[in-house]
Amino acid sequence: MVALAQAGSHAHGATAYVSLEPCNHHGQTPPCSEALIAAALARVVVATRDPDPRTDGGGVARLRTAGIAVQTGVCEAEALRDHAGFLTRVRLGRPAVTLKLAATLDGRIATATGESRWITGPQARRWVHGARARHDAVLVGAGTARADDPSLTVRGLGMVHQPVRVVLSRRLDLPLDSTLGRTARQVPVWICHGPDAPARARDRWDAAGATLIEVAAGPGGQLDGAAALAALGARGLTRVFCEGGGALAATLLAADLVDDLAMLAAGLALGAEGTPSIGAMGIAALSDAPRFALRDTQVLDGDVLSLWSRSAEA
Amino acid sequence: MVALAQAGSHAHGATAYVSLEPCNHHGQTPPCSEALIAAALARVVVATRDPDPRTDGGGVARLRTAGIAVQTGVCEAEALRDHAGFLTRVRLGRPAVTLKLAATLDGRIATATGESRWITGPQARRWVHGARARHDAVLVGAGTARADDPSLTVRGLGMVHQPVRVVLSRRLDLPLDSTLGRTARQVPVWICHGPDAPARARDRWDAAGATLIEVAAGPGGQLDGAAALAALGARGLTRVFCEGGGALAATLLAADLVDDLAMLAAGLALGAEGTPSIGAMGIAALSDAPRFALRDTQVLDGDVLSLWSRSAEA
Repeated sequence: MVALAQAGSHAHGATAYVSLEPCNHHGQTPPCSEALIAAALARVVVATRDPDPRTDGGGVARLRTAGIAVQTGVCEAEALRDHAGFLTRVRLGRPAVTLKLAATLDGRIATATGESRWITGPQARRWVHGARARHDAVLVGAGTARADDPSLTVRGLGMVHQPVRVVLSRRLDLPLDSTLGRTARQVPVWICHGPDAPARARDRWDAAGATLIEVAAGPGGQLDGAAALAALGARGLTRVFCEGGGALAATLLAADLVDDLAMLAAGLALGAEGTPSIGAMGIAALSDAPRFALRDTQVLDGDVLSLWSRSAEA
Repeated sequence: MVALAQAGSHAHGATAYVSLEPCNHHGQTPPCSEALIAAALARVVVATRDPDPRTDGGGVARLRTAGIAVQTGVCEAEALRDHAGFLTRVRLGRPAVTLKLAATLDGRIATATGESRWITGPQARRWVHGARARHDAVLVGAGTARADDPSLTVRGLGMVHQPVRVVLSRRLDLPLDSTLGRTARQVPVWICHGPDAPARARDRWDAAGATLIEVAAGPGGQLDGAAALAALGARGLTRVFCEGGGALAATLLAADLVDDLAMLAAGLALGAEGTPSIGAMGIAALSDAPRFALRDTQVLDGDVLSLWSRSAEA
């Protein structure tokens, strides 16, 4: 709508390039397909189809019926990546999840005594801030929130808009005088808790400005990861950046809820007493392990970043 | 000596480029310094000094006394890497050690039930064979020898010369009908064992063609890693490629006996029940963890290889 308004009469007889099929339904705005027809475009090039059942090919069909030439599938792979959050929410009813693991060469994220600052270097931490900015929300488990007292904000990049900060805490046993508790009115804090979270804790966090989201508990008593993500998706989140800890990472991986994985490996070894980057997953056979396909690698100072996407193979 | 013989009278007045200071003592051959003087070289360019106390600058001094112009320190960093094995043995009395870790994204080398084939892909395994070929010996712990029944040979690269296969087994409790036991006459098998290894096991492995090396036990009852490596150095090994398992990796790392580390990360997650790539190291503080500086990264099929060298920092 904004582009058509800016183009004005230049749109007449022109070609529009769109990364997603024009919608064909009344949402927050009237249908884009109608707007393109009204602007008298001659041709529309579409990267990929909108799987939303209210459109799903209907936008393209409507343009063609109106006599507009439509080409589809141009740069489709790139568009699928760009729209991964939106598409995941439409298809699976949950946001796309990127899991970050920042660990030693042997996959440890802290010493036995809990020391974890800093395993990776400044450039890796800067990358993490950029990754937070590219997601709608940053997600951690309650153990990480308690142990690290993180702020989970984007810093050092000149960002004004901040991602939502989400904590999964079944019992809502998080200290109110934490960084998250003290800043919940400046940058949104959402807490997914279980049905058994005490009313008193709910009242206090509500008063502190947090958004409380009740989620079903899974069979093991832990919060159900799929239910939590579905609740986040229902509230509009399309891209969630999970920064651990190991228990939450294991829950999400075991339930096949991780779409992308960002691995930051630092050049040190801590040994088996260290805290594992991924907790117990209950995997018996290698063929049951979730597999990821390598997408890219980068060197960040002395750390190695590798980016992986969930692979159908396994 | 071979090059001078091939050059014949062309050596007269010529420049020789050598990656290591010409030796100045009678070893298996007469001193190289004398040979260069006898061949009437005009100039010798030396990459790095030989720290062997019988040479250690004496080779260069002798050439200069004989009127030959000598330039030193050319491509010294490269020479130090090429000669790392030799130099480590001269300086520390042990071979240089490369530790290979081939693990999942969370640092696991096998499932809880011991399944480990194959975590990395064919190109990573091919790289491992090349790495074996670039070392004098391949080293594993007794647990890995028992669990994997490995051959530890170089395969698929047209290699004729094979590295020595070394197993650390305090009690010599290794099955004789293993691949190593059956092939000990074709490719050398050396077993470092403790003083308490039963005489019967020693006799049998001796009869199978293995070389037995008695090594002191450390304070924990495990074989002393430094003593084992010193024994290997005394037998002429300069470069050892350690392929685990986790207990041996932890022993070597904790004793600061690992010079280079080759990390192969495969795109899957196994969770905390999986076998850790590095066992218990007894490290309490991050500042006590051995640190490694990144040297290079490569993508091998879908696996990420990163090469690290022991760093003075930390």
